[in-house]
Amino acid sequence: MSAPFSFTLIKTDGAARRGEFTTPHGTVQTPAFMPVGTQATVKGLTPETVAATGAEIVLGNTYHLMLRPGPERIAALGGLRQFMNWPGPILTDSGGFQVMSLSSLRKLTEQGVVFRSHLDGAMHELSPERAIEIQALLGADISMQLDECLRLPASAADMRRAMELSLRWAERCKRAFESVRGGRALFGIVQGGDDLALRAASARELVAMDFQGYAIGGLAVGEPQETMLKVVEETAPALPQNRPRYLMGVGTPHDLLEAVARGIDMFDCVLPTRNGRHGMAFTRRGPINLGNARHADDARPLDAESAHPAARTYSRAYLHHLTKANEMLGAVLLSTVNLAYYQELMAGMGAAIAAGRFAAFRAATIAQWEQGDLPPP
Amino acid sequence: MSAPFSFTLIKTDGAARRGEFTTPHGTVQTPAFMPVGTQATVKGLTPETVAATGAEIVLGNTYHLMLRPGPERIAALGGLRQFMNWPGPILTDSGGFQVMSLSSLRKLTEQGVVFRSHLDGAMHELSPERAIEIQALLGADISMQLDECLRLPASAADMRRAMELSLRWAERCKRAFESVRGGRALFGIVQGGDDLALRAASARELVAMDFQGYAIGGLAVGEPQETMLKVVEETAPALPQNRPRYLMGVGTPHDLLEAVARGIDMFDCVLPTRNGRHGMAFTRRGPINLGNARHADDARPLDAESAHPAARTYSRAYLHHLTKANEMLGAVLLSTVNLAYYQELMAGMGAAIAAGRFAAFRAATIAQWEQGDLPPP
Repeated sequence: MSAPFSFTLIKTDGAARRGEFTTPHGTVQTPAFMPVGTQATVKGLTPETVAATGAEIVLGNTYHLMLRPGPERIAALGGLRQFMNWPGPILTDSGGFQVMSLSSLRKLTEQGVVFRSHLDGAMHELSPERAIEIQALLGADISMQLDECLRLPASAADMRRAMELSLRWAERCKRAFESVRGGRALFGIVQGGDDLALRAASARELVAMDFQGYAIGGLAVGEPQETMLKVVEETAPALPQNRPRYLMGVGTPHDLLEAVARGIDMFDCVLPTRNGRHGMAFTRRGPINLGNARHADDARPLDAESAHPAARTYSRAYLHHLTKANEMLGAVLLSTVNLAYYQELMAGMGAAIAAGRFAAFRAATIAQWEQGDLPPP
Repeated sequence: MSAPFSFTLIKTDGAARRGEFTTPHGTVQTPAFMPVGTQATVKGLTPETVAATGAEIVLGNTYHLMLRPGPERIAALGGLRQFMNWPGPILTDSGGFQVMSLSSLRKLTEQGVVFRSHLDGAMHELSPERAIEIQALLGADISMQLDECLRLPASAADMRRAMELSLRWAERCKRAFESVRGGRALFGIVQGGDDLALRAASARELVAMDFQGYAIGGLAVGEPQETMLKVVEETAPALPQNRPRYLMGVGTPHDLLEAVARGIDMFDCVLPTRNGRHGMAFTRRGPINLGNARHADDARPLDAESAHPAARTYSRAYLHHLTKANEMLGAVLLSTVNLAYYQELMAGMGAAIAAGRFAAFRAATIAQWEQGDLPPP
């Protein structure tokens, strides 16, 4: 069998961290951004295209995959990696977040959550034990505990209740995970809403349980960026230095930069692909809306300095045309460009931390975003 | 400047022909299938992906491009090849067919056709002279004359009138084309509906005008395959041996096989990409509907013998999942698989003709289609 999960912290620069983790299916440099492969596909992109953006790991959504095509089916077909033809490691979420946001008629109890599928109305049950079982069937290199994720703002009582339930589910997940073989990892998830004391308590209890990594969940759910960063800033130091830290569902390039500055190692988010499908490009000069008429005659590429050919090859005029004509290739190219920019940003942060110049990189990156897009030709 | 347009007939086998034509932007082996890049994109596919299927030339639609983004704009951006980043030759149609099928409120006169855009309701005019001008602005390696294309069945009077109008437009196109530079080619289009005498008259008049290639238009517009093949069989021998023959808008793999058997060299059709977007794969064992539940647990690839990795790599179960989940990647992969199968079929025909065994290839290909898909695992 291949090497078991391990994390190495290579260098710190302030609170920012450069590291790497090893999984049974490959090594991942951190800080790392994980493209989201919701339904066993990063929308519109072949695995070769995803890999060519620089991604070393992708995320799969337990909620979507348990409903369709079903985890037992994926297991019989060799697991999610083989199913979607992704050669590298995969992290799966536990399904909890999407149960809360997508399904209807859910009933949450100590045991777990019963919900109605948004696809066909069928009833399903997700418990901590089943969440671990599903993720094992999918063959996840990194599994996540089942947690309860609230939208913010939420009442203090709700935040406490959800945090405490998530801790009890963390224990049950850990117990269920003991039978999962093959050097795979299980991460606990810090909850507690925007209450720093609850966050501290959640982190303390989870660390006592000793997970292979720790996520900060329940953020990017409606709160201001300032609130999110405050929680990250206070929570990250409560997590062990020698374990990876994963900020779930985050975020914009600026979110990533600021969260790395506060000690986060891993991210996932649908923004680069979702916004790409809607004509928006992330670039070193900030976001660019390709639907805007000012691009209609612009022969320049999106970003002549990009390391990725998609950003250097196609004219803004062409991307504008594809966007206005609602052509699938527009979604494909802009998703590619955006994932490539996210990976370029992560690699840039990693190199800066390794060189002890993260603060300068951060300032220069923000300055370039603020400078904005190229002036008209 | 690069070499001007030329066609070489390399080998005949019965009526079937193996040849090649040279354009300012590359050489194309015939029989050739041209993927359709309607709005300056073969839907969902990067030019690299299209080229990797084996395609050597793509088709652009004058009607769509004149409405959006506009031929003057494309010309200012370096032409259609540069706009869509396609390195090889491009053939453009004249716009006539789509004016008839897509626009409303059209008024056809001797001068040309005035029509209302299906996009924004704006009025546009297309004359033989403007059709040539637009195709020159797009930078087409091969331009098509403007013609009037009827749906079948049509009355004898309508077929005659449209055929005769198309001949007068052919003359005007030829005159207008005299100022188009760069070794580009103009093809005339044989019309006449399903009336063989009208077809013969149309072919005779066009050949007298001496075009660089001849298309058979106004087929695959509602008539039975038998009717189409009869028109092809009677019309092809009336065209010069030393000019390429292009059957417009055709067709299924069986159509291509039978049309090549009757002396056709070039084809274009949206079927491989359109059907790919709807879960249908063309394979050496006939068409396969990936939406069918029988594929849900099938770990086998679509076609283990395909020359293209997309047909060999992904399981039927995965393609079924993408189709059921309406995932963009399903459309991308099946469009790729289908274009690759079409190109494999064309290359197979070309090799068989060159070896003097086209009849055997045709029989074996049909037998394999009729044998049908693999039995269940």
